[in-house]
Amino acid sequence: MQTLESHLAGSWVRGEGAADTLLNPATEEPLATASSAGLDLAGALRFARERGGPALRALTFRERGELLRAMSRAIHAHRDELIGLAIANGGNTRGDAKFDVDGASGTLAAYADLGAELGDLRVLPDGDPVQLGRSPRLAGRHVRVPRRGVAVHVNAFNFPAWGLGEKAAASLLAGVPVLCKPAISTGLVAWRIARILVDEKVLPEGAFSFLAGGPGDLLDHLGAQDVVAFTGSSATGRLIRASRAVVERGARLNVEADSLNVAVLGPDVEADSEVMNQFVGDVVRDMTQKAGQKCTAIRRAYVPEAGLEEAAEMLGERLSAVRVGDPAEEETGMGPLTTAQQFRDVREGIADLASAAQIAWGGPAAPAGKGRGFFVAPTLLVSRTPSPGDRVHQREVFGPVATVVAYDGTAAQAAERAAWGGGGLVASVYSDDREFLEAAVLELAPHHGRIALGSSKVAAQAVPPGTVLPQLVHGGPGRAGGGEELGGRRGLDLYTQRTALQGDRAILDAIAGGR
Amino acid sequence: MQTLESHLAGSWVRGEGAADTLLNPATEEPLATASSAGLDLAGALRFARERGGPALRALTFRERGELLRAMSRAIHAHRDELIGLAIANGGNTRGDAKFDVDGASGTLAAYADLGAELGDLRVLPDGDPVQLGRSPRLAGRHVRVPRRGVAVHVNAFNFPAWGLGEKAAASLLAGVPVLCKPAISTGLVAWRIARILVDEKVLPEGAFSFLAGGPGDLLDHLGAQDVVAFTGSSATGRLIRASRAVVERGARLNVEADSLNVAVLGPDVEADSEVMNQFVGDVVRDMTQKAGQKCTAIRRAYVPEAGLEEAAEMLGERLSAVRVGDPAEEETGMGPLTTAQQFRDVREGIADLASAAQIAWGGPAAPAGKGRGFFVAPTLLVSRTPSPGDRVHQREVFGPVATVVAYDGTAAQAAERAAWGGGGLVASVYSDDREFLEAAVLELAPHHGRIALGSSKVAAQAVPPGTVLPQLVHGGPGRAGGGEELGGRRGLDLYTQRTALQGDRAILDAIAGGR
Repeated sequence: MQTLESHLAGSWVRGEGAADTLLNPATEEPLATASSAGLDLAGALRFARERGGPALRALTFRERGELLRAMSRAIHAHRDELIGLAIANGGNTRGDAKFDVDGASGTLAAYADLGAELGDLRVLPDGDPVQLGRSPRLAGRHVRVPRRGVAVHVNAFNFPAWGLGEKAAASLLAGVPVLCKPAISTGLVAWRIARILVDEKVLPEGAFSFLAGGPGDLLDHLGAQDVVAFTGSSATGRLIRASRAVVERGARLNVEADSLNVAVLGPDVEADSEVMNQFVGDVVRDMTQKAGQKCTAIRRAYVPEAGLEEAAEMLGERLSAVRVGDPAEEETGMGPLTTAQQFRDVREGIADLASAAQIAWGGPAAPAGKGRGFFVAPTLLVSRTPSPGDRVHQREVFGPVATVVAYDGTAAQAAERAAWGGGGLVASVYSDDREFLEAAVLELAPHHGRIALGSSKVAAQAVPPGTVLPQLVHGGPGRAGGGEELGGRRGLDLYTQRTALQGDRAILDAIAGGR
Repeated sequence: MQTLESHLAGSWVRGEGAADTLLNPATEEPLATASSAGLDLAGALRFARERGGPALRALTFRERGELLRAMSRAIHAHRDELIGLAIANGGNTRGDAKFDVDGASGTLAAYADLGAELGDLRVLPDGDPVQLGRSPRLAGRHVRVPRRGVAVHVNAFNFPAWGLGEKAAASLLAGVPVLCKPAISTGLVAWRIARILVDEKVLPEGAFSFLAGGPGDLLDHLGAQDVVAFTGSSATGRLIRASRAVVERGARLNVEADSLNVAVLGPDVEADSEVMNQFVGDVVRDMTQKAGQKCTAIRRAYVPEAGLEEAAEMLGERLSAVRVGDPAEEETGMGPLTTAQQFRDVREGIADLASAAQIAWGGPAAPAGKGRGFFVAPTLLVSRTPSPGDRVHQREVFGPVATVVAYDGTAAQAAERAAWGGGGLVASVYSDDREFLEAAVLELAPHHGRIALGSSKVAAQAVPPGTVLPQLVHGGPGRAGGGEELGGRRGLDLYTQRTALQGDRAILDAIAGGR
C-alpha cells in the first residue's frame, strides 16, 4: 500500500505514528496512508518564505506565468494517470475526474495567459495616477506587491486537482510561495500532482510545498505576511477565522464554505422550451456530477407554484436515467460519495430536509450500489409551502440532493426566499423575460458571488452555473465564507499588499512601471 | 451640563442609568454625559436596514453624492462652533481642530465629486466584460451592488469629525446606511455633527443613526450583510475580530489599528537641505499635532548611523520651540492628551520605550502644563543599537513621542528594521537618490498601506505622511489591522458585494450600465 509523503523544506518526508487511510469509496478497499505527525511544519514554512519567496519575487509576471504554463502541461501530460487515481480514490466517474483534472490544467493555463499579459513587471499597478498637489508633479498612485509570507492552501476533498491548481495559479503568479494541504481522504490525486511538479523540477525550490496528512500545528506558525486560503466546511472555516493566527497575528484569510446555491426558473419559461431544458439539465448535472459533492451545486431550485409538479416530474424523469454504480464503468452516470462520513452525513441530511419537504425521487433508503461502497441515490425533494426556518434553507446536504421550492413567480419573492440561505456562491436564473432577469439579478446579487443567466439566445453555448471559471470571481458572502478567489487579475489581490504611493510622479511611474 | 442623546430609529433618545462623563482635558472640567444603557439597538439596526437602505439604494451615485455635498456644506457652515467644541472636549489646538473638521468636510466633498463622476448608475461596473463562449454573445462581467445591511462605524477618539465623515462618505455613496458610534471621551463634536445632519434633514430617514455612549450589545445584532468599520486599538480590534458577529455570522469587518509608522532618512540627505527640513518638519508635526494622537503619526524615524546625533539635535531644537499649554490660546503649539487614561498610558509608555532607548528630549517627568489637565512634554528617544525585541518596535505610545532609530544607510536594512514593527499604516522616505528611494519603497511596500516619498523637487507642495487623503487608501497590514478605507472608488469595496455575472452580453451590459 502506498504511503503518501510530504514535500517540506525541499525534501520528501514521512510523518510518524498512526496514519490515516485513503480508501476506494466504491469498494471500501484501502489505497494509501498518510500521516503528518512529527513533521517540522515551522521549518517548512520558514523554508518556503526564505527560499521560495525570493525566488518567485525575482521573476516577472511573464516568467511566473511560464511556470504556470509548465505546471499546466505537466498535469496534462499525466492526465490519464490522474483520472485513474480520481476514479479509484475519489469515486469519480471518468467525466467527474476529467472535470477536476482539466479544471486544474485549464485554470493554470488561464493564469499563465494573464502572466503573459501583465508582462515584464514585478509590481502591479492598481488604477491610474491622481494629481495631489498644485502641479501634476506631485501625484499619488497605487501598486500591489507580493506579500512576504507563505500561502497555506487548505483544499476540500471534492476537487483535489482543481483546488490545488486554482489556488496555486493565483498565489504563484502573485509571487507568493505555496504550501498545499489537500483533504486527506482524496489526497492521492493531489499527492501525485505534487510528485510530478517536484520530480520534474517545474518550480523553483521552496515555491511549492505539500503536506500529506493532518494540519498539525501549521496555523500556530503563521503571521501577518502569510495567507490562508481555505475551502471546506463552514465549521472548519469558523475555527480558522477564530484562530490566533488570524485574530491576533493578522494572517490574511480567505474562506470558501458551504452554500445553498439556488436556481430560479422564470415564470415565462414553457415546459418544452430550450430554457426549461437548460434549467433541468443544470439541476440534474449539479445533483449527479461528483455525486453532488460540489460547493457550487444547486441545492434549491425555485419554481413558480403553478409549474411546480411538472418541473419536479421532469427532474425525476431525467434522474431516472442516471445509472448509479461503479465509477470505473463507462456507462455509470454517478459514482459513490467520497467517504463513510459523507455517506452518513448525506443520509442523515436527507432525513433532516424531509422534515419540511417531501421526497419526490430517491431518498435515504432508495437502492444504490451493491452493498459495498458509499452509494446514495440521487434525491429530489419538493417544498410546496416554504418558510425561512425550514432545514432546506439551513443545511447543506453535500451529496446528490436538491429541493424544488415554490415561489409566486415574482423576482422579489424568489430573491427573498433565496436569501433565507444566508449567502451563496452562485445563483442561476432562467428566463427570456428581460425585465424578470434584470430584476432577479439585482435582487440576488447582494447575496451571491456569481450569477449565471440562462436564456434561449445563449442556451447552446452556456457555461453551467456549477462550473467555476478562472475569469470570474469564485466566493460568496455570509454562509459561503465571505471570500473571493479567481476572477482573473482580481485573484491576485489575496496574495498582494495594495500600497498607496505619494510623491514625485516620475519616480512613482518608474516604480509602478517596474523599470 | 449637556446630555448627549442618541439618534436611533428616527428619534433622539437617551440612555438610562449611570452615564460616562466627557471632560475638557486641559482643565478636567466636565462638559457632558452620555449613556446608551437600555437603548433598543436591535430595533435601531433594523430601522436603518429597512428604512435607510431602500432609501439610499433608490438613489443614483450622483444623487448620493449630492447628499454628501450637503453633509460637507452643513459641517462647514458650523465650522467655528465645531472647532470650539474640539478645542474644549478634545484638547485640540485651533490648528488640530481645523485639521479634524476640515478633514471631514473635505473628504465628504471628495466623495461627492466621485458620486458625480459615477453619475446616474446604481450598479457599479467592475472591470471590462470578457468573452466566455464561442461567440461574443456569451460574456462575463463583474458588478458591485450595495450590501443589504447597515454599516456600524466605530470611531477613535482622536478624530471625531473626520472619522465620522470619512466612513460615512464611502458607506453612503455605496448605498449603505450608517450607524455611527464615536468614542465616548471626545463625542461632543461627533454628537453636534449628528444633530446638525438630523436637524437640518440632510439625509433620508434611516440613512444615518448615531449612538452616544457605550456599544452595548450592538455586535450581537449584526449579520452577514452588515459591515463593521472600526478604528481604534489593536486590542479592541481583536475583540471585534473574534466576535460571533464576525466569526459565526459573517459580518464584514475592517480594522484600522495601532501602528508604529516609520520615516526613513536617506543617506544622501545633507543637514542643511530642503529634504532634511521636510523630514524634520514631518517628524515634529507628527509628534505635536493632536499631541501625537494620530494613528498615522511617525513613531520611528530611521536615520543613518553617521547622522544620528545631528538629526536628533535638529529634532530637539525644533521641539524646543513648541509651546505646550492651553489649546484655547492662540500661541499654543500643542495641547494636552485627551483623557486621563491616555495620560497614564503615555507616561508609562515612555518609560517602557526607555528600557532600550535613550531619552533625548522631554521625558515622562518633563514639565508640561500647569498642574491640571493631561499634559505631557513632547518626547524624543534615540535607539543607537536597535534589536527586533526592543519595545519601540512593539509598543505604540499614542502621544507626542517618537524614537530616532539607527540604520546602516541601506534601503534593505531600513526596511528590515521597519518591518520589526509588524505592519504599519504609512511609511515615509526622504531622499534625492532615486535608486535609494525606489529600493526602499519596494522593500517597505509589503508592510505598509501607504508610502510618502519626500524629495526636493516636490518638497514645496508635499502632503505630509500623517495626512490621510480621500484619493489614497488608508489602512495597513498586520499590526495596522489589515484593513483598507478610502482610496477613491476603492473605498466603496467594503460596503458592496462584488458579483460575477455570466450570460447574454446585452443583458449584462444593461444591468451593469444601470439602465
